[in-house]
Amino acid sequence: MSFTAYIYDVISKTIRPVKITIKDGLFSEVAPFTPNEETLVDVKGLILPGFIDSHIHIESSMITPAQFAKIAVRHGTTAVVCDPHEIANVLGVEGIERMIENAEEVPFNFYFTAPSCVPATPFETSGAILDSNDIEDLLKKDEIVALGEMMNFPGVINGDEEVLRKLELAREYGKPIDGHAPLLSRENLNKYLAQGISTDHECSNVAEALEKKLKGMKIMVRDGSSAMDMEGLFNIKESKSTVNHMESLGLLYRDIFVNEICSPLFDFIVSDDKHPNDLIKGHLNLSIKKAVTLGIDILKAIDMVTINPAYHYNLNCGVIREGAKADFIVVDSISDCNVLKTFIGGECVFDGENVLFDVPEIEAQNSINASKKSPDDFDIHFDGDECEVNVIECFDGDLLTKKATAKLRVKDGIVQSDIFQDVLKIAVVQRYGGNTVSNAFIKGFGIKGGAIASSVAHDSHNIVVVGHDSEMMAQAVNQVIEDKGGISVVGEDFSDSLPLPIAGLMSNEDAYDVANKLGILHNMASALGCTLKSPFMTMAFMSLLVIPSLKLSDMGLFDGDSFEFIDVIKN
Amino acid sequence: MSFTAYIYDVISKTIRPVKITIKDGLFSEVAPFTPNEETLVDVKGLILPGFIDSHIHIESSMITPAQFAKIAVRHGTTAVVCDPHEIANVLGVEGIERMIENAEEVPFNFYFTAPSCVPATPFETSGAILDSNDIEDLLKKDEIVALGEMMNFPGVINGDEEVLRKLELAREYGKPIDGHAPLLSRENLNKYLAQGISTDHECSNVAEALEKKLKGMKIMVRDGSSAMDMEGLFNIKESKSTVNHMESLGLLYRDIFVNEICSPLFDFIVSDDKHPNDLIKGHLNLSIKKAVTLGIDILKAIDMVTINPAYHYNLNCGVIREGAKADFIVVDSISDCNVLKTFIGGECVFDGENVLFDVPEIEAQNSINASKKSPDDFDIHFDGDECEVNVIECFDGDLLTKKATAKLRVKDGIVQSDIFQDVLKIAVVQRYGGNTVSNAFIKGFGIKGGAIASSVAHDSHNIVVVGHDSEMMAQAVNQVIEDKGGISVVGEDFSDSLPLPIAGLMSNEDAYDVANKLGILHNMASALGCTLKSPFMTMAFMSLLVIPSLKLSDMGLFDGDSFEFIDVIKN
Repeated sequence: MSFTAYIYDVISKTIRPVKITIKDGLFSEVAPFTPNEETLVDVKGLILPGFIDSHIHIESSMITPAQFAKIAVRHGTTAVVCDPHEIANVLGVEGIERMIENAEEVPFNFYFTAPSCVPATPFETSGAILDSNDIEDLLKKDEIVALGEMMNFPGVINGDEEVLRKLELAREYGKPIDGHAPLLSRENLNKYLAQGISTDHECSNVAEALEKKLKGMKIMVRDGSSAMDMEGLFNIKESKSTVNHMESLGLLYRDIFVNEICSPLFDFIVSDDKHPNDLIKGHLNLSIKKAVTLGIDILKAIDMVTINPAYHYNLNCGVIREGAKADFIVVDSISDCNVLKTFIGGECVFDGENVLFDVPEIEAQNSINASKKSPDDFDIHFDGDECEVNVIECFDGDLLTKKATAKLRVKDGIVQSDIFQDVLKIAVVQRYGGNTVSNAFIKGFGIKGGAIASSVAHDSHNIVVVGHDSEMMAQAVNQVIEDKGGISVVGEDFSDSLPLPIAGLMSNEDAYDVANKLGILHNMASALGCTLKSPFMTMAFMSLLVIPSLKLSDMGLFDGDSFEFIDVIKN
Repeated sequence: MSFTAYIYDVISKTIRPVKITIKDGLFSEVAPFTPNEETLVDVKGLILPGFIDSHIHIESSMITPAQFAKIAVRHGTTAVVCDPHEIANVLGVEGIERMIENAEEVPFNFYFTAPSCVPATPFETSGAILDSNDIEDLLKKDEIVALGEMMNFPGVINGDEEVLRKLELAREYGKPIDGHAPLLSRENLNKYLAQGISTDHECSNVAEALEKKLKGMKIMVRDGSSAMDMEGLFNIKESKSTVNHMESLGLLYRDIFVNEICSPLFDFIVSDDKHPNDLIKGHLNLSIKKAVTLGIDILKAIDMVTINPAYHYNLNCGVIREGAKADFIVVDSISDCNVLKTFIGGECVFDGENVLFDVPEIEAQNSINASKKSPDDFDIHFDGDECEVNVIECFDGDLLTKKATAKLRVKDGIVQSDIFQDVLKIAVVQRYGGNTVSNAFIKGFGIKGGAIASSVAHDSHNIVVVGHDSEMMAQAVNQVIEDKGGISVVGEDFSDSLPLPIAGLMSNEDAYDVANKLGILHNMASALGCTLKSPFMTMAFMSLLVIPSLKLSDMGLFDGDSFEFIDVIKN
């Protein structure tokens, strides 16, 4: 295949007309070409390298890699570096292998990282443990391009043997190590970096990014469904006094700050997590447009999702040059950047209307090893008329919770939830054969009747349920068990569920169907009185023990500040 | 030689006891050692790598390289990366070779750069031109470790062929390229950096340094005699609002800003120029102490003058490890860092009292090719009683001048200086055989009678003279010519001079003698009424055409804003 077109050449940072020849899926020729009045270029529009999301957990999209590819190519994405951390917590190496197998069946560039922190903590039951031997087996694979985000920064700093061994292996195999170190600074950051950890996607302000960047990290700006850091990092308002200072020196103005300091400060734009309802609207194509509205030069924004990640992870894509994979997109113009067509390995995979490949399913083997529950599994007993309890106080879409307390009525020896105080019941049901249920109380959901349950519950993905009474909580959990994993809503007059039979995390359905069903479940949760915009995401964080202050694991109520279990009932 | 001692190990960033063995001038063993009550370490004090000044023009010290070494080892300096830009402007490649020959005769590590911009402009007469062929010859030498500071940034940006060729040669020979780009920013900076220019020592504020650093440059902080940028760059007061902003984010406090952001932001501490009167007091030993008073961690300050420059310029010194040159110093303690002894190649060169090597002379060949001048050479003629003239307005120690005007009386057809307006005469006498004199007026010196002259006059080092009347200006210039170069002061009742017979820039005397004589000349200039603290340095900048706004070359009065010659007389 041979054609002439205008390209944005991310290497020379120029837009120029070229003649492109593609052979065996690679660019075999990218030669200068001079159009004139008679010989216009063949391609209408501008060619860019396909976009690369250099940090994403595909499981958060609740669809298989193949389905992810099908929706992503519509938005110009041709490659992802994905950390299969979620499925690894459920199914271990076997789960990762199933992801890779499914990914290989579609024309899309999936690169994987070896999840470094499975399980996340010893205070919960996960489906698998990835030790350093497993990590070594993974790092040997060509599909694995890096060691996944090292969230266990205390382990790195304190020299945990297994943690250090995993890091050593990554260095031995010559693969980069992704970081995850929110607010880490000074000597502790230095120790973390001394292990060769090279990226961070947790920066929430410019000062934090600056210290990390100057100490050698590459900074990922998140623009995802869970975490949207881009506004805070690029937005001049956030950094007003910095800019004032710079302007007082007669040097810097808004555009200089944003383009000349922010652009080189940040290396990549990533999504981290992209929920199905967001993914159907767009992906990195929308992120670069947002960056432009915040003042970043469009060309620099494109670099952050093409050449920068390609060079860092040593991927043979993300650039238009001879020998690289012929992954590219056609956009209408550099100013609008609307994706008209997507090519992977020289083949058109999206023609502007349809995605031109078929999507294989992952065979769903039941990963939920839990017996049906009865209402009394969700009862908390107390001998007396009233008792004081510790309560998890949560906030919409927030990983952080607060420790609250409440006085609750006891009826027939069972502590009662209280909709007037908005204190509901929450439980985590072990799904890995242990058949235990851990119960507690939560504030913030606003549910007046009914229950919601989900097998998406970070990081071990036991079944989490929030509800007003034990009866409906049991129903909601049993629906998830019956569906072999998924999300359910149970009310007095209605109930529905989104089955996620692949590891309890993903569906074989396409993004539109999953987003549609999820939308229905959201509406039903609202009908239960739930006041949260993201009830399922918020609920999924309630078992994420590493983020303070109070969380619930299948083993009990966990104080994330003191890192120990505490009792539900105070007296 | 073998001994035990505590060292600051700049590689592991730790202070630790070791056993050191030295063989053939190199560290042959640096082994862990555990002192106990019976076996204390042999060396009293702490061992550091010798200090490296990674950007200095030795000619500014007015002494030969060998004499420079003799004074520098007293301050713990064991290596310099020096740019022989000044002598190159006078004597070309031959001058550089004489510097190298002299340098090789003392036990000190001199590394040279190939001066990239000789002459500085086509608007003046220099003693030599270094074209790309000369640069290639220089880059082939082992003693030349880099291409010297590329001051001609307009040439780089506009693609001047010879400039690009020199840069290309440096890349070909695998030698780093030093930059010099005050306030260069945005697209122009990007173009400059695209040529592989990797250092900058011209940053005058944090914002400027930040942009350059984030775009890949290594930043040199100057703490020299002409330029003292360190206070502005490290001092928290300068950056108060930046810090306020950071603190408002709950993240950063003074020590974090200085140590965690400033330290990695700045790579090297350099002097650039070190005048004899400053050099006898100290060198990098004082600079690191000053850095500490500004809040920088002492260990990080040491890194900036040891391992950082050594690694950048690929020098086999600056670290204490097996195989590196055994250049090290003994200091009393890490907190005080007073230099007790200095070793180069394993040999003691300074024992705390005396410098233990002899200093060879450079044979002074007369480089001043100018005939004696008569007073009327300094007359400016005008037909009338009064005339309006353009006047250079200068400021103490400042490279920048302003354009001023003055009305002056004319007597016998000769325009008269006016001490009441402080408008004196200035002249540049061509010293390369052309025998021309270029005359103008200057404001700011305050001299009430007499003249001062010097063959140190950047960048071409013609003879510059400032005075009240033509008679004494001729005397002062003739003294410089008679001395084969140097600095002279002529008053009604006294006159004296400091001969600088090597290229008109350097003396074979030692630093103390030169500093002493320079002190006498300073006092004499004050006695003439001169109000400047640094009259000779200020005068030396009056011919530096590249810095605006009004300067004087041997070819005439030069407008540095419009880059063209203008007339002295306005009407």
